[in-house]
Amino acid sequence: MISNEIKNKLQAVVGPEYVLDAEIDCFGYSYDSSFIPLSPNNIPDLVVRPATTVQVAGVMALANNYGIPVTPRGTASGRTGGSIPLAGGISLSLERMANVVEFDEKNMMITVEAGMRTIDVYNFCAAKGLFYPPDPASWKYSTIGGNVGENAGGMRAVKYGVTSNYVMGLEVVLADGTILNTGGKAIKNVTGYNLTQLFTGSEGTLGIITKILMRLIPMPKARNTLQLMFPSIEGACDTIHQMLQSGVVPASAELMDKTSIQAVARHRKLDIDPAIEACVIIEIDGDDNEDLEKQAQQIAAIARRFEVKEVHIAGTLKESEEIWAIRRGLSSAIGAMAPNRFGEDISVPRDAFPAVVRQIRKISEKYKFTIAVYGHAGDGNIHPSVLCDMSKPEDAERIHHAIDEIFAAALAVGGTLSGEHGIGITKRSYLEKALGQAGVNTLKAIKQALDPKGILNPGKIWENKV
Amino acid sequence: MISNEIKNKLQAVVGPEYVLDAEIDCFGYSYDSSFIPLSPNNIPDLVVRPATTVQVAGVMALANNYGIPVTPRGTASGRTGGSIPLAGGISLSLERMANVVEFDEKNMMITVEAGMRTIDVYNFCAAKGLFYPPDPASWKYSTIGGNVGENAGGMRAVKYGVTSNYVMGLEVVLADGTILNTGGKAIKNVTGYNLTQLFTGSEGTLGIITKILMRLIPMPKARNTLQLMFPSIEGACDTIHQMLQSGVVPASAELMDKTSIQAVARHRKLDIDPAIEACVIIEIDGDDNEDLEKQAQQIAAIARRFEVKEVHIAGTLKESEEIWAIRRGLSSAIGAMAPNRFGEDISVPRDAFPAVVRQIRKISEKYKFTIAVYGHAGDGNIHPSVLCDMSKPEDAERIHHAIDEIFAAALAVGGTLSGEHGIGITKRSYLEKALGQAGVNTLKAIKQALDPKGILNPGKIWENKV
Repeated sequence: MISNEIKNKLQAVVGPEYVLDAEIDCFGYSYDSSFIPLSPNNIPDLVVRPATTVQVAGVMALANNYGIPVTPRGTASGRTGGSIPLAGGISLSLERMANVVEFDEKNMMITVEAGMRTIDVYNFCAAKGLFYPPDPASWKYSTIGGNVGENAGGMRAVKYGVTSNYVMGLEVVLADGTILNTGGKAIKNVTGYNLTQLFTGSEGTLGIITKILMRLIPMPKARNTLQLMFPSIEGACDTIHQMLQSGVVPASAELMDKTSIQAVARHRKLDIDPAIEACVIIEIDGDDNEDLEKQAQQIAAIARRFEVKEVHIAGTLKESEEIWAIRRGLSSAIGAMAPNRFGEDISVPRDAFPAVVRQIRKISEKYKFTIAVYGHAGDGNIHPSVLCDMSKPEDAERIHHAIDEIFAAALAVGGTLSGEHGIGITKRSYLEKALGQAGVNTLKAIKQALDPKGILNPGKIWENKV
Repeated sequence: MISNEIKNKLQAVVGPEYVLDAEIDCFGYSYDSSFIPLSPNNIPDLVVRPATTVQVAGVMALANNYGIPVTPRGTASGRTGGSIPLAGGISLSLERMANVVEFDEKNMMITVEAGMRTIDVYNFCAAKGLFYPPDPASWKYSTIGGNVGENAGGMRAVKYGVTSNYVMGLEVVLADGTILNTGGKAIKNVTGYNLTQLFTGSEGTLGIITKILMRLIPMPKARNTLQLMFPSIEGACDTIHQMLQSGVVPASAELMDKTSIQAVARHRKLDIDPAIEACVIIEIDGDDNEDLEKQAQQIAAIARRFEVKEVHIAGTLKESEEIWAIRRGLSSAIGAMAPNRFGEDISVPRDAFPAVVRQIRKISEKYKFTIAVYGHAGDGNIHPSVLCDMSKPEDAERIHHAIDEIFAAALAVGGTLSGEHGIGITKRSYLEKALGQAGVNTLKAIKQALDPKGILNPGKIWENKV
């Protein structure tokens, strides 16, 4: 519980109307987009909504002084519980800090506040002919601060990398309220440790990211889409591998297994050849249509070497949209197949993709759960969706074993627990298996150094006491 | 001084012949490629040359136990004193750890030991058709571990980035001898804080990097070189800017000012039009000659908009070599102009390049030092070389003021002290100006957390007591 005295002080910092304490308001800040069930334990004592960095600093100074847990959040679109206030205290919402601070066209960089939506950043830049590539699935409602906090990925990562590849500098409010600036507009910068990348992906446990300086690239002039249907997962993976090895790097290369394809087919009433085991959707971009045609023909030629059954090269924007609609409809189509769905986010060395998909199929058979597998095959990031009915006690018990085995399969080939969703709450019990004792100890030493009272997003990445 | 008892223990770890204590041997480990003068204070007590990670761990466990300073080094090609053992103790040479640990062709990755020469890494990969792009000037003798420790850059950074962009994972021996593994082959990886990028560029102050996992890319199929001569620095910079903005990204874009051009001309007995104020050398690469021709013509067209006086597009490998010889001969040509030379390494937002070059010219006039300016204009990394004669008391006094003003000019436009050489010893007194008090405190907190006894490369990045 937070005393009235402290509440008054917080109100003095951000203004009375921006400190929420009604139960119904606080409840709204107790959950995110993960499969963590609602719980009264996760309701914050207060929601604080600052409008400026100085206000964030004021809130943190108070929280540090009084030892109050602070859980930062944007729009809570995260998939691993990162913004859930496990320890009560303050839910620090950055949604009011949603402005462009500076657009620097000559250096192709933009500085934005953390609460700006990712899509708004993209659109703002696109209107100026510049491209901010990272496109996590939630980009229409996620905030850029959340993307940086979790180091969000997306479909364009194959060619363009993930959020961290665009972060040049940060403004961060530290646990004690100190305002820290990292990085800058110099493209090459080796002055001191790389704090920018330390805070990126730190899931709100090391500081509150308030502003982000990002580099942009010229907008590709032309785009096209290919849909490839294969009789085997291996053929699909080999095609992607050969394509990248030969230097043809598409913007996206998405793979769906048979379960996923059938789910979409049912959902959208499409007629799909039952012999198809894998569908690959590839987005290419480049200078002009001639360039795209060359890439498309190279990819088609490679796919034919691996026994592709159908090659569909979109001719128009409308056809591209139709192909992408299949991929975009996937999540809801799979979600509709069962009452509950556990979506995971393992990431493996690219060449291990087919073996891990086969292993997941074995796990599916062993535990009798339908597991739909799709993902960013171009970069080895796999999203297995385990479908179950948690109202059945036998499902509720077995599900965790199945997920354990999925993580084990990823780690066994040198992969990792999370490609783009973060560890949050849902994967913290696997952390030591992934990083080893030395790794976990090193993370904890850094956390202790930057947040000695442990007030920043407690309970995330690893379990700890407040 | 290190006691005989400890020396015996170190010999037991690495073998007696790999602990050097003769004065002449230790002297050889007391300097690097920076302008820091030789000093008996910088001679280590012992040189230790381990052959394996386990041996490094054994050395660190002893050093930590007895509180002995350890300065790691490769071939000491650094420019800022990073490998100089300021506090005596152990010079830990990694030169015997120079093997390829694993070459993973399918995932396009390589794992190497830290003591392998950068050029050997490049050649090993090139023989397999893969490309390791970072090419710091010293790459023929520098080690890859040193490159990672300093986050070395190079001429290809415009298109391909710097060392850190290729580091996927590290094996690091921590201060107490613990062996830590970071990162991995999963391209997308958000499991825990980004320790890989924290250790990259940490200048040996947080741990001893023993192995490096690096990603590679397909080798470009064709290359060509352009030489552009401009009557003004502005025209040269504007050309580079327009080129990048229009999406034509060359592998390198090097700029030389008039002082630099004239130095090379004298040195190589070339005849260069005195009206030329700037020379830009551009390397382009791509799929085939047709692709290169298109890029070359685009660049030439842009250069003509900015009043280029000469455009020379190499037609053969030999012509390319001749153009690059001008840039490669630059350092010795400038070095020959005066008894002493202070080479700096500031990095600025790309659009500030011409203004900073003008500012450096003013500093040159004010202090009456010749300052040759060249650099990686494509990424804003400038190398001003201040020429002087340190045997003259008036030069020795003024030189530091001139360098102060160069750093101030970089910081004033949002630039930084170092683009690719690191802070080491030579720039540590400017650190707080560059990072602010909060930045320096954060670095120190991390250092304290990972190396509580302060034994790892003491006196680097900031001044401290051992």
